[in-house]
Amino acid sequence: MELIKTVAEMAALGHGWRAANKKVGIVPTMGYLHEGHLELAKTSVANNEITVMTIFVNPIQFGPNEDLDCYPRDLAGDLAKAESVGVDYVFAPQPADMYPKTYSCSIDITGVSETLCGQSRPGHFQGVCAVITKLFNLVQPTNAYFGQKDGQQLAVIKHLAADFNMPVKINGVPIVREADGLAKSSRNVYLDEECRKQALVLSQSLQVAKRLYDEGQRDASMIKAAVRAHIETAPLAEIEYVEIVDALTMQPVGKLEDEVMLALAVRFKTTRLIDNILLGGEA
Amino acid sequence: MELIKTVAEMAALGHGWRAANKKVGIVPTMGYLHEGHLELAKTSVANNEITVMTIFVNPIQFGPNEDLDCYPRDLAGDLAKAESVGVDYVFAPQPADMYPKTYSCSIDITGVSETLCGQSRPGHFQGVCAVITKLFNLVQPTNAYFGQKDGQQLAVIKHLAADFNMPVKINGVPIVREADGLAKSSRNVYLDEECRKQALVLSQSLQVAKRLYDEGQRDASMIKAAVRAHIETAPLAEIEYVEIVDALTMQPVGKLEDEVMLALAVRFKTTRLIDNILLGGEA
Repeated sequence: MELIKTVAEMAALGHGWRAANKKVGIVPTMGYLHEGHLELAKTSVANNEITVMTIFVNPIQFGPNEDLDCYPRDLAGDLAKAESVGVDYVFAPQPADMYPKTYSCSIDITGVSETLCGQSRPGHFQGVCAVITKLFNLVQPTNAYFGQKDGQQLAVIKHLAADFNMPVKINGVPIVREADGLAKSSRNVYLDEECRKQALVLSQSLQVAKRLYDEGQRDASMIKAAVRAHIETAPLAEIEYVEIVDALTMQPVGKLEDEVMLALAVRFKTTRLIDNILLGGEA
Repeated sequence: MELIKTVAEMAALGHGWRAANKKVGIVPTMGYLHEGHLELAKTSVANNEITVMTIFVNPIQFGPNEDLDCYPRDLAGDLAKAESVGVDYVFAPQPADMYPKTYSCSIDITGVSETLCGQSRPGHFQGVCAVITKLFNLVQPTNAYFGQKDGQQLAVIKHLAADFNMPVKINGVPIVREADGLAKSSRNVYLDEECRKQALVLSQSLQVAKRLYDEGQRDASMIKAAVRAHIETAPLAEIEYVEIVDALTMQPVGKLEDEVMLALAVRFKTTRLIDNILLGGEA
């Protein structure tokens, strides 16, 4: 496995792969890898000739009061993990190399990026779209892999790629969970013992929703109320949102007809966790 | 020469060229071709294995009170002209194919897009950036050719490509002029006889500026005043702007030190014309 540290080196490699018509998979991450990331990497390794994992804590997708400075980092550990699952290249650039002083572009997507996390994190998805556009142009991937855990991010990037006719297939990979159900997240490391215990209500509440759905409930407000009620059994849980949205457009629905995503964001003390479940799709 | 009418066909061709590592040149136009466009095409034909000319009157780069509906169109004539200079493919899509109802992305560039035409045509360069991003992703060009006539557009697209690490070289091609000096433009067709005659002051005023520069004048306000004075000798000329900007950043300069662009936009009745000259560069 090779570590690429500069934009120039990455561009040279990516453009070489393009010229040689290599099948390249990209796994964009912010590092501090967990099994969810490694599942993305394994999926890429199994389906491409070359897998590039990017590790970049993208400053422009963090708001001014968010956790950019204290976002957990462990490059040495990440490199060992990436190598263990067969990643060929890790691209870990410096912020000033990705965003030189002259950088002044931004990408905006209305609709799909405005609900859920888009409401509570203004500017977040613009930052995601910009960095993904740059990484795709540098790496020239055939396939890109994103976790269903960040369900809205996946929908936004699918929309971005479609709107701009990007020559890359966007692949969603199912959520990886701890044995007790908590969705894997780099931010789980922030949770103290009590929060970690209470955070179980998130995945449990998704199962409450799934049970209601399987029993035939199609009224969004009924399902959301049941999910909220379950989350509220945890005294430390502060709900930011519980919403049911169309799986493509991320717009709230009243009735569950086509595939929808039940998504939630909940704070436990200073830690903001998200989770979701797809309901009514073909899978 | 082949005419490609759908986004799907263009994507299939472009991705095929990418896989075959073809050297492809793209010449984006809005059609109603004149010798300026054909010069771009000839430059591309001479330097690439395949040349794609795109003909698309891009609705999202026109403001609500601009000339979208009456913008001159002549596809049959354009195809004959394109073929005569060796273009291999003309891509002429429909607006609804480029911008389906779900389309909701936009690209913004601060700085370089905000001066000159960016001030008088709000949203114009966002529309240009979006369509160029789409066309690049569809055609997968090695080289792209733009006229120096639209000098700010060229600077904006160079900035766009650099910011997003696009794998394409942006090439500027010198302005092509009528025998009497008027810069070739599809909009020249709007000029009545009297306006056409008076419009000569534009290219003449650029020569006034060049003479002053060659004589050692480096004060921007002195040069702009002389240019304005010359344009104002034409009674029908209504100056929108006369500005001297840094050739890369498009920001106004007070002293002419590095390469600068003297740019102007002037209306003759309902017709808005632009022209420019580079001063102090290596060329």
